[in-house]
Amino acid sequence: MTDKSRVLIFDTTLRDGEQSPGATMTHDEKLEIAQLLDEMGVDIIEAGFPIASEGDFEAVSDIARASKNSVICGLARANYKDIDRCWEAVKHARQPRIHTFIGTSPSHRGITNLDQDQMIERIADTVNHARNLCEDVQWSAMDAIRTERDYLCRVVETAIKAGATTINIPDTVGYTLPQESAEIIAMLLEKVPGADEIIFATHCHNDLGMATANALAAVAAGARQIECTINGLGERAGNTALEEVVMAMKVRRDLMPYQTGIDTTKIMNLSRRVSQVSGFPVQFNKAIVGKNAFLHESGIHQDGVLKNVETFEIMKPADIGITETNIAMGKHSGRAALRSKLQDLGFDMAENQLNDVFVRFKALADRKKEIYDEDLIALMSDSAANTGNDYLQVKWLRVVCGSDGQEAELKMLVDGVEKSATCAGDGPVDACFKAVKAIYPTQAKLKVYQVQAVTQGTDAQATVSVRMEEDGRIVTGSAADTDTILASVKAYVGALNRLRVRSQKTAPDADLKSVSYKL
Amino acid sequence: MTDKSRVLIFDTTLRDGEQSPGATMTHDEKLEIAQLLDEMGVDIIEAGFPIASEGDFEAVSDIARASKNSVICGLARANYKDIDRCWEAVKHARQPRIHTFIGTSPSHRGITNLDQDQMIERIADTVNHARNLCEDVQWSAMDAIRTERDYLCRVVETAIKAGATTINIPDTVGYTLPQESAEIIAMLLEKVPGADEIIFATHCHNDLGMATANALAAVAAGARQIECTINGLGERAGNTALEEVVMAMKVRRDLMPYQTGIDTTKIMNLSRRVSQVSGFPVQFNKAIVGKNAFLHESGIHQDGVLKNVETFEIMKPADIGITETNIAMGKHSGRAALRSKLQDLGFDMAENQLNDVFVRFKALADRKKEIYDEDLIALMSDSAANTGNDYLQVKWLRVVCGSDGQEAELKMLVDGVEKSATCAGDGPVDACFKAVKAIYPTQAKLKVYQVQAVTQGTDAQATVSVRMEEDGRIVTGSAADTDTILASVKAYVGALNRLRVRSQKTAPDADLKSVSYKL
Repeated sequence: MTDKSRVLIFDTTLRDGEQSPGATMTHDEKLEIAQLLDEMGVDIIEAGFPIASEGDFEAVSDIARASKNSVICGLARANYKDIDRCWEAVKHARQPRIHTFIGTSPSHRGITNLDQDQMIERIADTVNHARNLCEDVQWSAMDAIRTERDYLCRVVETAIKAGATTINIPDTVGYTLPQESAEIIAMLLEKVPGADEIIFATHCHNDLGMATANALAAVAAGARQIECTINGLGERAGNTALEEVVMAMKVRRDLMPYQTGIDTTKIMNLSRRVSQVSGFPVQFNKAIVGKNAFLHESGIHQDGVLKNVETFEIMKPADIGITETNIAMGKHSGRAALRSKLQDLGFDMAENQLNDVFVRFKALADRKKEIYDEDLIALMSDSAANTGNDYLQVKWLRVVCGSDGQEAELKMLVDGVEKSATCAGDGPVDACFKAVKAIYPTQAKLKVYQVQAVTQGTDAQATVSVRMEEDGRIVTGSAADTDTILASVKAYVGALNRLRVRSQKTAPDADLKSVSYKL
Repeated sequence: MTDKSRVLIFDTTLRDGEQSPGATMTHDEKLEIAQLLDEMGVDIIEAGFPIASEGDFEAVSDIARASKNSVICGLARANYKDIDRCWEAVKHARQPRIHTFIGTSPSHRGITNLDQDQMIERIADTVNHARNLCEDVQWSAMDAIRTERDYLCRVVETAIKAGATTINIPDTVGYTLPQESAEIIAMLLEKVPGADEIIFATHCHNDLGMATANALAAVAAGARQIECTINGLGERAGNTALEEVVMAMKVRRDLMPYQTGIDTTKIMNLSRRVSQVSGFPVQFNKAIVGKNAFLHESGIHQDGVLKNVETFEIMKPADIGITETNIAMGKHSGRAALRSKLQDLGFDMAENQLNDVFVRFKALADRKKEIYDEDLIALMSDSAANTGNDYLQVKWLRVVCGSDGQEAELKMLVDGVEKSATCAGDGPVDACFKAVKAIYPTQAKLKVYQVQAVTQGTDAQATVSVRMEEDGRIVTGSAADTDTILASVKAYVGALNRLRVRSQKTAPDADLKSVSYKL
């Protein structure tokens, strides 16, 4: 890179983010998120871990084929089989990258049973192999922060000599502080021969709440690639949040004179989509993308002394794509208006898809006077979540609940055959879920159940998310409806459809990422 | 303070946290949270802003009276009336503190129409006045980070000379970076006469995701008081999270050789209570206290290569009070067992309170086989939320919903008189809320509606939170039940009761905090 102030954004929502328990995404969802990331200007998209499962391989391959401007990257452990499989998937991209890694800290060397010299050999060999397949090779020293400093210099030098073009220094356990994060990058730049020829990347986790500061401290010390996810999605406390590092560099350009290629006005839309698809709601006071992030105590807006918005606002809602008013449509809006509005929101669709959405839009508009952007997003997300996997379909539901007990009467199609059941339960949701189980017996356990109103007002649609587990597989189902109970049943059935698809694709344990897969 | 490694924890959950839109707490909730903070070892509790409203004054006074070990602090603007009112409230504490502030940055000087010299005079005068009332006086330079550095030195020197014992340097807009945060503290310690005689405090906001790192950087530079809130509660993106700074200093004692007085095993319990009371759910991947914070991808636990938990865990769940198993009780558990379990969870109650809770516990145990800690917390929170404000009471509910439409039949007591209504609606929740409105007409608007299952399993209790607004007043209502719809109605009615209490206490705008109240 010639421009020393340019910081590359490497998004790993689809790899490290999707790896968090319960955040599993479908093939189509991954493709859609990848397309949005590409359009937003993400430099490198880590699309998955091709050897982990057939599903991961297909997702990375299809994302590579569909890519426009972004580099498409796949993850591989330090062996030929992983690297070859990764190349088979990413090679379809205009700009492919192989990302290979090994744990270099004492406890990780213990796991792989390699001594320091044996590990050096392994790194030289595997990076060289990757480089023979692909010009763009990234190598990561897993748990770099807890690796002996001298040895870290040695492994980095080895990877550079073997042909790595990007060297990533991950804080795998979310353990570092800004000063330490900066010192390590500065040390590597100073001591390692060839360090000025490659790009250093920083990959932080938020276990102590400092991922953003740690990533930016690494950049200040000379790193030029930040690895991050939308909403900070990721295992445990998550990864560095893309929206935080990008906006921090924008707001504090005085102290951080760097540029990214990100169109920040697309941040809010991506945040909403990733939240829906992963089933991870964003908390009200999440930095940048939380509902309250731009909301001041109501007194302020009524306060005559507020002479200047800059007194309290360091960025504008529009900077991240929050528009002033988001009343979108009403019952008289036509197909063309719907198509155009959906395009604004980032949904491009074929004619037959639009037909389906239009029918659902009209049904919603009959029940709800004002249709907001959020309603359309929920509608789209609901339709994406619950089509294509229609082995189980909800046909009809009637529920009685309240002080005198709860009962659900349900009709469902199971592989096209109508079945029905009536069940009592502890609460209307329990009664419904028991009726589903009476029709389609399952051992799956409900782990998380949550409901969020899409907009304000008592007639709002509610989005229901459920997270279910069976044999170590975790899936999320979601659905939106003005009837919370109906949405609950659709979300539950959607999750069962997904579990079924996953159990057909893979043996029970085949898609579990083992401990040595974490960055 | 003689021990240079001791960092004071100043909790402002009840002042800056409670100030966030929608997080309003009742008097009893504030007292309860204050007691828990005191027991956890918080050094200073900022209990409220006594002049803001009669309710704030009473809350600070009662918290002061009940205080054991913590210093109790109240906020006051830079005028005698505020300061006198603050003293009237905090003086009941064993260790009272007056905290007075003024905005020192150019835009804030513009708001108060004071030039630099006039502001110096005002600071000297008001701090001196406070010091004549109270030995422990904290002074804050609001928007310190955006104040000219020379002028910041002048105002700090003035406040010290006038008798301030703690000087707070707030990043009011959440704008700073760790390096800048440290530089300002270091500069003040170096340049301001008398700076070594007082305590510097750091007060950060998380707008760019760096509040934790900024607070710790200030400590590294010499600050010895961190201002923070539980769960990072606060306006916009919130304040520094207490749990993050405390655990970061504990985990990285090698780089941050400081001590606090916090009993970290009480963190998780406080986090849950603050989340319930404020109606702000904690996101899954929130650092330290999120549901996923200690949850690894399930593969890991089954993975033979995991030789050592420290490979991926930098802290243990038990460190913050998450116990291994939390199966609490069943239907055969007696009163003594319930009382003892509730005491473990931080609830002390009188005999008559226990009677009420025991009846509700038995009713729940009849419906739900295993009662977890979370169930008891929900039960307690539900009972705290919905007693005392019983102008409106739900007597009986029957709801029909599903594919063919929704209808709610409701009986309520309004000031002891039974009334009933039957309404159709768009969804069961809408039908119920319309029935409530038919019985008790209100202009209040539903702003937020959310449901979260308390534990796993389809028969779990659900906690419903609603946030409502009327004439600029925002209140939260919450309720728990295995019947989601019944819980929704109880939460809605609870919020209406609170709105009624608030509108009796205050004129429509009297309790709105104006722009100049923010730190």
